[in-house]
Amino acid sequence: VLIVGERINCTRKRIGQAARERDAEFIKNEAIRQVEAGAQLLDVNGGIASQEVELLPWLVGVVQEVVDVPLCLDSADPEALSAALPLCRKRPMINSITDEPERKSAILPLIKQFGTQAIALCLSPSGPPSSLEDRVGTAGRLVDFLTSEGLAPEDIYVDACIFPLSVGAHHTVAMLQAVDHLASRYPGIHISCGLSNVSHGLPVRRLLNEVFLMMLMGRGLDAAIVDPTDFHLMACIRAAEALLGRDEFCADYLRAYRSGKLEPQAAE
Amino acid sequence: VLIVGERINCTRKRIGQAARERDAEFIKNEAIRQVEAGAQLLDVNGGIASQEVELLPWLVGVVQEVVDVPLCLDSADPEALSAALPLCRKRPMINSITDEPERKSAILPLIKQFGTQAIALCLSPSGPPSSLEDRVGTAGRLVDFLTSEGLAPEDIYVDACIFPLSVGAHHTVAMLQAVDHLASRYPGIHISCGLSNVSHGLPVRRLLNEVFLMMLMGRGLDAAIVDPTDFHLMACIRAAEALLGRDEFCADYLRAYRSGKLEPQAAE
Repeated sequence: VLIVGERINCTRKRIGQAARERDAEFIKNEAIRQVEAGAQLLDVNGGIASQEVELLPWLVGVVQEVVDVPLCLDSADPEALSAALPLCRKRPMINSITDEPERKSAILPLIKQFGTQAIALCLSPSGPPSSLEDRVGTAGRLVDFLTSEGLAPEDIYVDACIFPLSVGAHHTVAMLQAVDHLASRYPGIHISCGLSNVSHGLPVRRLLNEVFLMMLMGRGLDAAIVDPTDFHLMACIRAAEALLGRDEFCADYLRAYRSGKLEPQAAE
Repeated sequence: VLIVGERINCTRKRIGQAARERDAEFIKNEAIRQVEAGAQLLDVNGGIASQEVELLPWLVGVVQEVVDVPLCLDSADPEALSAALPLCRKRPMINSITDEPERKSAILPLIKQFGTQAIALCLSPSGPPSSLEDRVGTAGRLVDFLTSEGLAPEDIYVDACIFPLSVGAHHTVAMLQAVDHLASRYPGIHISCGLSNVSHGLPVRRLLNEVFLMMLMGRGLDAAIVDPTDFHLMACIRAAEALLGRDEFCADYLRAYRSGKLEPQAAE
């Protein structure tokens, strides 16, 4: 599974504060920690509305001083994206384009101009999805649209839009079913999710996040925006990769075991 | 998911010793612990070959002195089963009938005579399954056979036969795919597994067991033979039930949280 580190997100209190104060050391530390923990991309969200146009490029610059993984620019603001995209040293991902006409027409030119990968989030003009059919329908329109505009299927990451379980389990069930449908209907595309939203409003969030990711991976999800510094979640991901046949002879699993990445006490 | 407690199994060293010494208190304690931890059935295996005919009925008697859940008689020996079945106070399950002619013809009469539920394990005359097709083919023959003999689909628990991941990930992948196929092809039947075999020969077995069970549940598995005293596994199962929409308003999840069953420290 492609692991996108979620921590550099200015809607989180501590990160937002560091960003407002231009505390580069704090941001750099978050970048390093996530990459060391296994993040293959870093999501960067400058989400303080009035400041995003300054913050997003600042964050990109700071992060690239210390790590060299590609970035996932997490913004709906074409101005902020336009300011940040030219700074990216590695091919970035945009998070996200949706099926809402205004956002679609604003984001597409940036995807094409900068040759980015894109997360296609299943939001339609009629709002967020409420059923399996909504999700598959919106995802289908987005995939057809993006491929007709020249994107390769492997550059498209469909996010079937996770809702909090506390809102209703019909959302989590539909999300699981959507993974199957999308994986078989659009071979070549990736299926992604912003995981932590699922546990919003419930206790022991890490447990719900971890279990839901395992169920999604078991059905074919192959990318996730997660907290890679969550030790147990990462151990679960390593186990899942082995069980799904993506880790020949369990070599990575055994290496992780020997270096203390599967059990906290083994690291001591 | 139906939780069948796996611990009273005489092929395990400590249990085998207790059984040979007729240490009833030790066995009773194992029964009580598992039911208190959430087991809805208890698997009972008197697996010391020469002694099974005496041990299986003895175990059934001892266990029933302290708990009143139904038992899952885990034996391929018709003589041992014949001795134990009349003692069962609640409708038992037989673990297992297979597609091997000798076992099939020996076990079927017992299923019918005692009106038991049955685990249909995907072993065929040509041996254990090696592919998805093997598993689905053998499962199909077993389900057709058992229903033609009068069993209701809901009394059949298909076990697609878990192999250790260390033998090859093609087995774990095929097992995951088999769950989908069987659930959609035979509505009404249950899909089960003996979980812990998956991690045989690898380190951090609990992690592999837990992740594999979550992936199997995410695809439709609805029964499992597990160690219910594994605290984190049971917490994962509670989270999974909520995410799969089997726990309205997350009531059970929240109750488990409040009684300290989701986080070890919360119990203190």
